Amino acid sequence: MALIVQKYGGSSVADIEKIKYVAKKIVETKRKGNKVVVVVSAMGKTTDNLISLAKQIMPNPPEKELDLLLSTGEIVSVALLCMAIELYGEQAEGFPGYLAGIKTDAFYTKARIQKIEPSKILEEIEKDKIVVVAGFQGISPENSITTLGRGGSDLTAIALAGAIKADKCEIYTDVEGVFTADPNKVPNAKLISIISYDELLEMASSGAKVMQSRAVEFAKKYKIPFIVKSTFKETGGTMVKEIEFKEGAVVSSVAIDENQAKITIFNVPDKPGMAGKIFSALGEAGINVDVIVQNVGKENFADISFTVNINEMEKAKNIVEKVAKEIGAERVVADPDICKVSIIGIGMMNHPGVAGKMFTCLAKCGINIEMISTSEIKISCVIRKKDGQKALLELHKEFIEKS
Amino acid sequence: MALIVQKYGGSSVADIEKIKYVAKKIVETKRKGNKVVVVVSAMGKTTDNLISLAKQIMPNPPEKELDLLLSTGEIVSVALLCMAIELYGEQAEGFPGYLAGIKTDAFYTKARIQKIEPSKILEEIEKDKIVVVAGFQGISPENSITTLGRGGSDLTAIALAGAIKADKCEIYTDVEGVFTADPNKVPNAKLISIISYDELLEMASSGAKVMQSRAVEFAKKYKIPFIVKSTFKETGGTMVKEIEFKEGAVVSSVAIDENQAKITIFNVPDKPGMAGKIFSALGEAGINVDVIVQNVGKENFADISFTVNINEMEKAKNIVEKVAKEIGAERVVADPDICKVSIIGIGMMNHPGVAGKMFTCLAKCGINIEMISTSEIKISCVIRKKDGQKALLELHKEFIEKS
Repeated sequence: MALIVQKYGGSSVADIEKIKYVAKKIVETKRKGNKVVVVVSAMGKTTDNLISLAKQIMPNPPEKELDLLLSTGEIVSVALLCMAIELYGEQAEGFPGYLAGIKTDAFYTKARIQKIEPSKILEEIEKDKIVVVAGFQGISPENSITTLGRGGSDLTAIALAGAIKADKCEIYTDVEGVFTADPNKVPNAKLISIISYDELLEMASSGAKVMQSRAVEFAKKYKIPFIVKSTFKETGGTMVKEIEFKEGAVVSSVAIDENQAKITIFNVPDKPGMAGKIFSALGEAGINVDVIVQNVGKENFADISFTVNINEMEKAKNIVEKVAKEIGAERVVADPDICKVSIIGIGMMNHPGVAGKMFTCLAKCGINIEMISTSEIKISCVIRKKDGQKALLELHKEFIEKS
Repeated sequence: MALIVQKYGGSSVADIEKIKYVAKKIVETKRKGNKVVVVVSAMGKTTDNLISLAKQIMPNPPEKELDLLLSTGEIVSVALLCMAIELYGEQAEGFPGYLAGIKTDAFYTKARIQKIEPSKILEEIEKDKIVVVAGFQGISPENSITTLGRGGSDLTAIALAGAIKADKCEIYTDVEGVFTADPNKVPNAKLISIISYDELLEMASSGAKVMQSRAVEFAKKYKIPFIVKSTFKETGGTMVKEIEFKEGAVVSSVAIDENQAKITIFNVPDKPGMAGKIFSALGEAGINVDVIVQNVGKENFADISFTVNINEMEKAKNIVEKVAKEIGAERVVADPDICKVSIIGIGMMNHPGVAGKMFTCLAKCGINIEMISTSEIKISCVIRKKDGQKALLELHKEFIEKS
């Protein structure tokens, strides 16, 4: 007998038929002798519809009221899922976030979980009930409803699993698990059976659409292993946990981010504080900068390049042009025709020469590398956008298929 | 400066435009120097839509989960109305029922308010905010969400007004107030400016669609006066309060109930306990019986007639036929072609002869009376359905227009 937390996302409970299917799955888990706590998201597009209602009142609705509004979406799912569980003969107890003891700070729309008081949940579990908790929400110190931001239901599930010391935490979604590359782009992509928190985090920041980083970071911090699986298929599943050292493949996945743009400032005077001025200005405007590279330009001058999300390119360019004038730099060029390819794997830490192998692989295909960025377990190259797909396939062949 | 509770029903907040209109009205009330607490219902058909979702899972959804589901409708209204109030420059604080301190018993779907702890509401009022409370809901002793049943938002408003000792309680709706008769049926119907709780209660049980009885009963019990007004018209309004004695018209309103059917049991043995058996059986089946009349039939036998809601006629007939066999009564006849006309007025208590005047009025028009029922402030006659409209007009002429 195990204590299991299962999380079902919005696409898993998008309509009544799916809710019934999920309820059946939950009831089966229970009847195998397990205790089950379920975390559920809002049905399909509910959250988007609620946001659009709010935006009809004002373009930037106040965040506290927005949270109160959005929290209703998950509560609807909780109530319907409880009904469906009871339809299949098991008892269920539904909890909105505030009744589940999920205490957060007061940063509305992106609150952080501060504490979980799971006594009520455990009480109901002891009564042999299936507990269903609304994902994505909690309650602030001032007793107002908060939401946890994008991917918040994953976070709820992982945090709950930690708080009740669950034996398993299962994140059900519409894919079979984590793959060595996006299967839509790389036909030979393979399912990864075990992956480390750090690799998954690096994948998310490399353009792979897997899970939001906040939930994974929380899992890493509190060492809560979890499994990502498909709601509607029995096969597959990727276990995410702490891995110190892994036998086998050095690189576990390759990824591409096609939503980046490059901005270059030419001939920045080569003296202390210049880069600081540029990136402080961007930070104040809330623009996330990804790869940064500084080259030597003319004598006593340097060229600085960085990448941002393509949607923020114009905004970033305008800001940087102002700063460039102030500091006496020459000109600013924005280039949307780039992409970033990355290879990720904790095996890299113990295998020197991976970077060289990557650069050679790209060179062999005639692909020019414009920027390079590395971390302990990731190497990223910024290349022309038109070369992205080819680079991805070649890197996957070199690092995954051959090994 | 006054402390005012305003309640807006589902049709008053049916869409974003109406929510904005209502917000403007609330902000104006506040800016006249008042403190305002608002109670709001779910938008338009939200509650019906949620019920239909639940019924797609199972025809009789469990009541506790149904309450959790339905409670989200009002919370959506609260959040949107708060946003709209802030759009017009005032601060708002929204409360789901459980945070507003509305404590109920655990009779899900028809919970009764047991206590209101308004300290949080009063705190926010003191901060110069407009407080918006979700109507129709509360929290049970076991900390689960409850709903108060049909008309629950009126009840929330009236109970809150009592708990915070409001100076005024205003129930905004889609009619101008309480009329001497249904204006759709009696063109000469007039708005009533003041009416007693008892008269309003008798009107509701006489087929007039005004307010649900539970809210009015609560107001009467705790002596909380309130006013019924139109959201979208400035004119009109009916004050409902305790009235010991009223000058002027003896009869304050006339009403018709066309949703009744008559069931007659012929030749019931005239011995003790017979009527008890019949009506206990109906009570156990949850059937509400309205007018009951017992006539003398053949020697040692009596005929018993009663009325029920027309939707329950067949069910009631089947039950009564079984009992009739057991007790040796002759036969049971169900008659859907009747209606009930009533005159209501607290003036009747001090004016004998009103009943006679009513019977004479009907007789003059050639209308036969089949059953009569009276209370201290109401006289009802069951007549043929085809005579209903004429009876209503004549009674209104006689008792309202002439006086």
